[in-house]
Amino acid sequence: MTRGRFTVVGGGPVGSLLAIVLGRHGYKVGLYEGRPDSRLTSIYQGKSINIALSDRGWRVLEHIGVSSDTKADAVPMYHRAIHGVNGELSALPYGKEGDAIWSVSRGGINEQLLDAADSESNVESHFEHWLVDVDFKAAAAVFQVKREHEVTVDADYLFGADGAHSKVRRLAHNLPRFSYSQEYMPQSYIELNIPANPDGSHKIEKNALHIWPRKHFMLIALPNPDGTFTCTLFLNFSGDPSFESLQERSAVEAFFESNFADAMDYLEDPVDAFLEKTASPLFLVQVFPWSFNRKVGLIGDAAHAIVPFYGQGMNCGFEDCAELNRLIELHDHDWDLIFPAYENARKPNGDAIAELSKRNFVEMSDLSGDRKFQLRKMIEAKFSARFPELWTPLYSMVTFSPDVPYSEALRIGDEQNRVMEKIMGLPNIEEDWDEQHVMDQLLNLASEAFGDQ
Amino acid sequence: MTRGRFTVVGGGPVGSLLAIVLGRHGYKVGLYEGRPDSRLTSIYQGKSINIALSDRGWRVLEHIGVSSDTKADAVPMYHRAIHGVNGELSALPYGKEGDAIWSVSRGGINEQLLDAADSESNVESHFEHWLVDVDFKAAAAVFQVKREHEVTVDADYLFGADGAHSKVRRLAHNLPRFSYSQEYMPQSYIELNIPANPDGSHKIEKNALHIWPRKHFMLIALPNPDGTFTCTLFLNFSGDPSFESLQERSAVEAFFESNFADAMDYLEDPVDAFLEKTASPLFLVQVFPWSFNRKVGLIGDAAHAIVPFYGQGMNCGFEDCAELNRLIELHDHDWDLIFPAYENARKPNGDAIAELSKRNFVEMSDLSGDRKFQLRKMIEAKFSARFPELWTPLYSMVTFSPDVPYSEALRIGDEQNRVMEKIMGLPNIEEDWDEQHVMDQLLNLASEAFGDQ
Repeated sequence: MTRGRFTVVGGGPVGSLLAIVLGRHGYKVGLYEGRPDSRLTSIYQGKSINIALSDRGWRVLEHIGVSSDTKADAVPMYHRAIHGVNGELSALPYGKEGDAIWSVSRGGINEQLLDAADSESNVESHFEHWLVDVDFKAAAAVFQVKREHEVTVDADYLFGADGAHSKVRRLAHNLPRFSYSQEYMPQSYIELNIPANPDGSHKIEKNALHIWPRKHFMLIALPNPDGTFTCTLFLNFSGDPSFESLQERSAVEAFFESNFADAMDYLEDPVDAFLEKTASPLFLVQVFPWSFNRKVGLIGDAAHAIVPFYGQGMNCGFEDCAELNRLIELHDHDWDLIFPAYENARKPNGDAIAELSKRNFVEMSDLSGDRKFQLRKMIEAKFSARFPELWTPLYSMVTFSPDVPYSEALRIGDEQNRVMEKIMGLPNIEEDWDEQHVMDQLLNLASEAFGDQ
Repeated sequence: MTRGRFTVVGGGPVGSLLAIVLGRHGYKVGLYEGRPDSRLTSIYQGKSINIALSDRGWRVLEHIGVSSDTKADAVPMYHRAIHGVNGELSALPYGKEGDAIWSVSRGGINEQLLDAADSESNVESHFEHWLVDVDFKAAAAVFQVKREHEVTVDADYLFGADGAHSKVRRLAHNLPRFSYSQEYMPQSYIELNIPANPDGSHKIEKNALHIWPRKHFMLIALPNPDGTFTCTLFLNFSGDPSFESLQERSAVEAFFESNFADAMDYLEDPVDAFLEKTASPLFLVQVFPWSFNRKVGLIGDAAHAIVPFYGQGMNCGFEDCAELNRLIELHDHDWDLIFPAYENARKPNGDAIAELSKRNFVEMSDLSGDRKFQLRKMIEAKFSARFPELWTPLYSMVTFSPDVPYSEALRIGDEQNRVMEKIMGLPNIEEDWDEQHVMDQLLNLASEAFGDQ
């Protein structure tokens, strides 16, 4: 029995997962991707690009039953390896013993999910189909095929899973009462590379996310299973220093030498890469509604493009799929109910992870800087270890507590901030932070704030 | 001597005024409007639509020297005439004795400014030129002329003064690092009409802005010189009651009878109008930057579409023109300096009046409701009259104090809120509000907050 036809625009990880979910619920799904099939044609130019996956994402993949291959290829990162200006290294755990975020190959997970989608009898995937237009009332789409001819694809419903630059979303700009915002961050980024050792091992600690925090800019490195690291330099687009101000080779060399001296032993031609590459902008997209005429929906980055500083983008998109999976059953395939329930459930969480991700740039890029901030983290960690029922640090709520929605994590985190501001305002806190009276005070405040929850 | 060529897209009040400013500075200006010339062809369907002008707008028009005709045709409104549910009337002054906002004919002021622009030897106006495309690097524009053929207009610079739905701005969506948001309000609106008496006089008090505040919706009426009033019903788009929920004639009749009983004696077929008209949405647009490549700029509603609840939209656009006028002299025609100085000076003010306008819906629609709110206004008015150097009410700062930028008014207004929250939290304030100790306390708090400024 077929429940109806779905067009899914975008064959990335979220689009592929959504196709699987819909196919298993009995819908005929056409999955349309603009680029060629990476399983047949190399489109990644030989570079490993990775992406973070954490408990939220794993839970969704496990629930849907497509996690096994992916986890085998993923590299767990148990702590942040922080590189000081003078090369000094320190480790900051992500959570409790054993808690990890995972570096996953963007291409790898995409291909595994495409394979899983193709193995669903209800799913048919199409590549080199560029979306040209959407009829938002009829859920019909026009694609340009291989830059040659156009086809019109009819369906009962359509989802735009076509990423941060979503064409479906941009076409929706002209619909009545569609609110949208696209906000550029001051930072842009370029990707750099640390090659593997000749024996395929990693040149720096494998199971860590490496950060060179320099307050207004930072370099990070995530491990790949092949021994390489994919590095990202986040730097202001304009001002000083910035991608705009650093134009001369000598200035770029000086910038790297004075800020990332220890990394210069590993990075592959960073100065050439800096001079040759065009920095990519970072932007956030927030829109509402996420559905139109109970026929067309948005999902993943198409609905909520965020900045990468919390490593939650793909996790959030997978959660969107899980919510739809739940709602299809709950509302027994009634899309007049599913679409509004979906956007009302997920929009507050998309907004929350957007806000959290923006804030986390400051936190990451200043990790080695502010002594008071470090102290605060230590006090929180100590208290949380002793009273886990009263206090889960914000990072752990977001990353390791998939039962806590992002919006709830943000709300609790703001309440924690208010409590910790009082604690950090205690006289002599810098000397006394490890004293019992600080714990006692924090217990009072935390019980007041969270005791009844 | 010609300074260069300017294309101004949009022949509304702001575009016309900008053309005058630029023409007087020696630029050759082409002013392009999509609609026919209303001076030759009636495009207003016989209805008077009005728009509010206050001290900011008048100051700009006087400074540029184009105010005389306009003021003669404007109707001053010295207070709000508040219509209670049972027809009881009360008056709430806008400011000090003689302070007024002015109801101006939208078509009238537009035609006066177009006449003034046409009388500038440097300005040439073109109608029925619909913008199709803009080359943001070359400041060239393509227009479709009378829906027949296309022309390309070259220029050195271009301004989009093409209103809330600005095509120039929408074309800019595709430019790198352009942040934009478009946010719909829950309310939509329709326009209604109160006709004149047979002798051309006004059926209700002429020199007032009439408000029927009903908390979640409201009706307002602004006088026209011809004896009519243009009324606007603001009501939620969905929910109950809303434009969506009120579909049956009987329900619409009941809605008007129970909420606007006294107005029913004057309104021209409001139930028919309600059933026939499509409600227009209310939305805010915020973007940055307001200029591109030091060649193309945005001005007026094209840069900062706001909601009408403060009556400041046109005033803000006129202030944009005044700022450009100032900067052209200051930077001696160096547009590499003028564009960034213009957007940095005006953006915070556009954002502030957007925020203030949003908030003012709550204030206007709840005018007759909250007793504490009324008390607060009375305390403020009393204090302000006694200590004008310490306290100008927010409404007066925005409307009658053109020397105070919107952004400064918003900041001071928020500080005043914090002070007044303390005052309204005093025990027995509802009984004691007129007592000396309340004034003393307010003097202390206000001196602390504003005494050093």
